Amino acid sequence: MCRWLAYSGSPIPLEGLLLKRDRSLIDQSLHSQLGATTTNGDGFGVGWYDGGDQPRLYRSTHPAWNDRNLRELAAAIRSGLFFAHIRASTGTAIQETNTHPFRHGRWLWMHNGMIRDFPRIRRELVLAVDDSLFTSIEGTTDSELMFYLALTFGLGDDPIAAVGRMVGFVEETGAAHGVDNPMQMTVATTDGRTIWAFRYSTEGSSRSLYFSTRMDSLKAAYPDNEELAELSDETRAVVSEPLGDLPGAWNEVPESHVGIVKVGEDELRTFAPAR
Amino acid sequence: MCRWLAYSGSPIPLEGLLLKRDRSLIDQSLHSQLGATTTNGDGFGVGWYDGGDQPRLYRSTHPAWNDRNLRELAAAIRSGLFFAHIRASTGTAIQETNTHPFRHGRWLWMHNGMIRDFPRIRRELVLAVDDSLFTSIEGTTDSELMFYLALTFGLGDDPIAAVGRMVGFVEETGAAHGVDNPMQMTVATTDGRTIWAFRYSTEGSSRSLYFSTRMDSLKAAYPDNEELAELSDETRAVVSEPLGDLPGAWNEVPESHVGIVKVGEDELRTFAPAR
Amino acid sequence: MCRWLAYSGSPIPLEGLLLKRDRSLIDQSLHSQLGATTTNGDGFGVGWYDGGDQPRLYRSTHPAWNDRNLRELAAAIRSGLFFAHIRASTGTAIQETNTHPFRHGRWLWMHNGMIRDFPRIRRELVLAVDDSLFTSIEGTTDSELMFYLALTFGLGDDPIAAVGRMVGFVEETGAAHGVDNPMQMTVATTDGRTIWAFRYSTEGSSRSLYFSTRMDSLKAAYPDNEELAELSDETRAVVSEPLGDLPGAWNEVPESHVGIVKVGEDELRTFAPAR
Amino acid sequence: MCRWLAYSGSPIPLEGLLLKRDRSLIDQSLHSQLGATTTNGDGFGVGWYDGGDQPRLYRSTHPAWNDRNLRELAAAIRSGLFFAHIRASTGTAIQETNTHPFRHGRWLWMHNGMIRDFPRIRRELVLAVDDSLFTSIEGTTDSELMFYLALTFGLGDDPIAAVGRMVGFVEETGAAHGVDNPMQMTVATTDGRTIWAFRYSTEGSSRSLYFSTRMDSLKAAYPDNEELAELSDETRAVVSEPLGDLPGAWNEVPESHVGIVKVGEDELRTFAPAR
Repeated sequence: MCRWLAYSGSPIPLEGLLLKRDRSLIDQSLHSQLGATTTNGDGFGVGWYDGGDQPRLYRSTHPAWNDRNLRELAAAIRSGLFFAHIRASTGTAIQETNTHPFRHGRWLWMHNGMIRDFPRIRRELVLAVDDSLFTSIEGTTDSELMFYLALTFGLGDDPIAAVGRMVGFVEETGAAHGVDNPMQMTVATTDGRTIWAFRYSTEGSSRSLYFSTRMDSLKAAYPDNEELAELSDETRAVVSEPLGDLPGAWNEVPESHVGIVKVGEDELRTFAPAR
Repeated sequence: MCRWLAYSGSPIPLEGLLLKRDRSLIDQSLHSQLGATTTNGDGFGVGWYDGGDQPRLYRSTHPAWNDRNLRELAAAIRSGLFFAHIRASTGTAIQETNTHPFRHGRWLWMHNGMIRDFPRIRRELVLAVDDSLFTSIEGTTDSELMFYLALTFGLGDDPIAAVGRMVGFVEETGAAHGVDNPMQMTVATTDGRTIWAFRYSTEGSSRSLYFSTRMDSLKAAYPDNEELAELSDETRAVVSEPLGDLPGAWNEVPESHVGIVKVGEDELRTFAPAR
Repeated sequence: MCRWLAYSGSPIPLEGLLLKRDRSLIDQSLHSQLGATTTNGDGFGVGWYDGGDQPRLYRSTHPAWNDRNLRELAAAIRSGLFFAHIRASTGTAIQETNTHPFRHGRWLWMHNGMIRDFPRIRRELVLAVDDSLFTSIEGTTDSELMFYLALTFGLGDDPIAAVGRMVGFVEETGAAHGVDNPMQMTVATTDGRTIWAFRYSTEGSSRSLYFSTRMDSLKAAYPDNEELAELSDETRAVVSEPLGDLPGAWNEVPESHVGIVKVGEDELRTFAPAR
Repeated sequence: MCRWLAYSGSPIPLEGLLLKRDRSLIDQSLHSQLGATTTNGDGFGVGWYDGGDQPRLYRSTHPAWNDRNLRELAAAIRSGLFFAHIRASTGTAIQETNTHPFRHGRWLWMHNGMIRDFPRIRRELVLAVDDSLFTSIEGTTDSELMFYLALTFGLGDDPIAAVGRMVGFVEETGAAHGVDNPMQMTVATTDGRTIWAFRYSTEGSSRSLYFSTRMDSLKAAYPDNEELAELSDETRAVVSEPLGDLPGAWNEVPESHVGIVKVGEDELRTFAPAR
């Protein structure tokens, strides 16, 4: 469906992960190896934090591989916390408002996967969005709606619980309409300090998700790697599929787990929907 | 806000009204004389009937004046019933799904004006859309939502009554939220045979709307006009502002009226919201 | 690099070859099986004749697979002679003026392949374009320049000789600059009546090219095929790779040959550059 | 035709001049007061320096007023030297490669005006571009070609002399083809340290151009203006038409003059083409 990456750590130019390596995200837009679709050419987006009240967004409906502005901006923009996403539409319109990451206040959200039979249950899901949030919905994707449901369920206070309630609500609503296995997702969300990365699907067979090995271990394994040497020990990336092929650099997020990337020790916890 | 035209009559290339005359719709995209905004550069759309089950659409987010494809297609496409619209956004996103005309089944719909304080009452309006229609809403404009409310209220059976109920519902909902003068509109809709063109606003001061003089009268007044000579007596156009400046060719639709363009005698009736 | 198709015969809606079959051109934009690249997502174009002085063009920089307007127009437009092309850029900018087919007067031109080391010899090639044609060049591709060179060398009078001189000139210019195997091409061109389809490369290893079997033979082989029954015996398509997989329907154009599709008997001749 | 601004001084977010003031450049894209056209909706571009080997570019074919990415980037990007341009095409295609500013190595270039009867003399002008520069030309505008001619004539060594030779060459070529008053221009160019801003036309009636008053004088005149207080005394802007309406803030560049904005005292000199 889509491919995404989330980065937290030493400020770097975005092009470091988007462009300048084998199997970069831009490479994956043409030739994904692990995705449900090999081509992810239905637009892309980048969201990043640079100290302001809310993150910045650059989103486009062009394929990432042929957008010159993306190359300029990925070289010009440095950030210590950013999201990037390349889209393969499952049918909804190709427009910036359907392009990830989505933003609300300090929060970013991006998704790979789908709500199955979304048109059948969309109205019921929309009705559950809080009145105060409703008019901020700008597009028509399942992904953005999942974000607004999570916000409704308290994303700002307890992200894991809120995402759990969102998933539970989607599964209940799907079940009530006879939808098998309603939820298929890898999701990343952040408030600009912590990243939460979820891997979950109703059927227990989720899209791929990987997190990078601790920097101190990687540096120890590759003492001569200059790129690694410049990165702080806190630096971490979470990705739909590995960038590059450094042995030992990438680890699969297990089924039904959430990774928490934050100042101090990162965590990996089991994740289950709330019923 | 926007400018539009609706045409019914002898099949002509679209460029006849869109491009090839003074004060054509394309001219108005750069220099509207009667519009609330002089520039209507936030996209455009054309919908036309060519004998199939549903009308065709060509919509773009580019300004109409610089879109080369529009020039090609306006020359290539002939139709005896078409709508054209140039947009000046009042804030919603510039994307094809927010571009008029909107289509549902055999129906087309386009709008100039606005629902005032739309974000405040949008959710309540959305909830009133029929369940079966809900997921066909693709954009986020007030205009498209008015269409789906009218469909919900029976546009397919009795268009004037349905639009009356839609307007009444928007006015009631606005009143309940303390919105002054919620509705400002000129609207055209068609099922491919008849065109209904409404001019209405809560405050009784609506955007401009004009209909062309009966062809037999125009031909009698201008016996040497070759362009007129080729058009059937049934030919009629309804426009936001006059195309060209042939004296006697254009007549204002009065406040709170609906014009009905159909096979046989056209009609002009008073229009009032249903409460 | 790219994929294209040229059609001549009974007027059909463009969607018949662009969309409504297995391995349609749109399918090939995402998953080409025989192309040098699997994804052809850097824009597309359609050119067709409808009786006017020059052909019509619809060209876009969006990927063909996600352009809604293309779907509308491919259903609305019928033609008995049309070209369609999906692009995979080899580096030049993604813009409509770099998108095939190219048009000059009555002529259309489209190309799959490349002039090797084009930047090194581009200026010398540009200088050879006739003064009166020079300012009609709108883009920066090798493909468009090949068209204007062929026009300079008499495309309007003797297309095969003119293309031969164009290829010869490119090869001589390349040789003078030490470029190995300067020309790699399949090219289609038409004046609205006859189609010439060339398969040639300096190294004798050209991109794939196929022509459809004579309709009378195909109808005899598939007497129950309703789609074939509606097509005249003169109907013929030339394509970068087969559309669909009807056994016996497609035949490879041999290396260094040109196919001529015209009223009366079609022809297949050897093709060689003029020195 | 177009509107532009050039800024040099204390690093500021681009939005300070592009968006956040009355009569900002974005305002001028909809409602220019002094331009040859009121609407400048045929794309825009921003070029800025951030310490690298070459300036960055963000260019788009959308109208500046409705491009969301521009708003994000204008807030995110800070620079002490930047160019911004909004385009009103005089006929050449709407594409990024025809959008100003143009870049070559360290240099930026932007233009308001035109070469009259450009198609008639274009080929002769193109032929004068140095062989090594030729293939860097990506678009088809007179503006970009003026840049490459100036580069050919030594822009990198002596910008005023090179622009003088470029103008002289265009005027000579025009005269040889019977073109009256070939050159109409305001041009800004920079190497990332110094800005040269030219106002010239063959007929001595050039497009408007203004430079801001010395900051020390402005601060003395407006001691309570907080925005001014934050800007260094070296800060200077050159614009097609004044931004805002602070009395005394803007001064017209005289006919046939060039302004030089640099470290130390700025200069204003007469400018004449070299024959």
